[in-house]
Amino acid sequence: MSNAELDILRDKVDEINLKLLDLINERAHLVQEIGKAKEVQGVNQYDPVRERHMLNLINENNNGPFETSTLQHIFKEIFKAGLELQKDDHRKALLV
Amino acid sequence: MSNAELDILRDKVDEINLKLLDLINERAHLVQEIGKAKEVQGVNQYDPVRERHMLNLINENNNGPFETSTLQHIFKEIFKAGLELQKDDHRKALLV
Repeated sequence: MSNAELDILRDKVDEINLKLLDLINERAHLVQEIGKAKEVQGVNQYDPVRERHMLNLINENNNGPFETSTLQHIFKEIFKAGLELQKDDHRKALLV
Repeated sequence: MSNAELDILRDKVDEINLKLLDLINERAHLVQEIGKAKEVQGVNQYDPVRERHMLNLINENNNGPFETSTLQHIFKEIFKAGLELQKDDHRKALLV
């Protein structure tokens, strides 16, 4: 493979990174909305049953090459970041 | 917000999770191709300059709500998983 071909592959990776970035932030907006709704309902934001459902969905739809355990590890980091965002919103709401 | 509305938001999150899953695996295929090419060239697979470039791109294109540091943490996990995949391929190639 030539260096030019390698650069094409790297450009494709960059494109995917930007799509991932947008989707992760789009997900974060939804998680913020869910957090606000749960706050009104007085429900705890962390929901282990819901998290288990999402992790199962990853497992059922994984066509590789990553192992499901690797993907679930990455998704847990995304979930954790979402939860932190909800907590920040909650703190800000208390300060208003 | 009603529970039905909450369910709609959760369905949207599930949809995004599946898109993320597909993109992360698509990225992994590209990373495998890059790994094979570098192996032929005898180049080290971990490339800190390339990683820095990708992290900068995240920073420049981040429209929130996540902080760049949070996103870079998530992406580092994705990069790490990609590197592990290349190492596995390398080990398998040695065993052939």
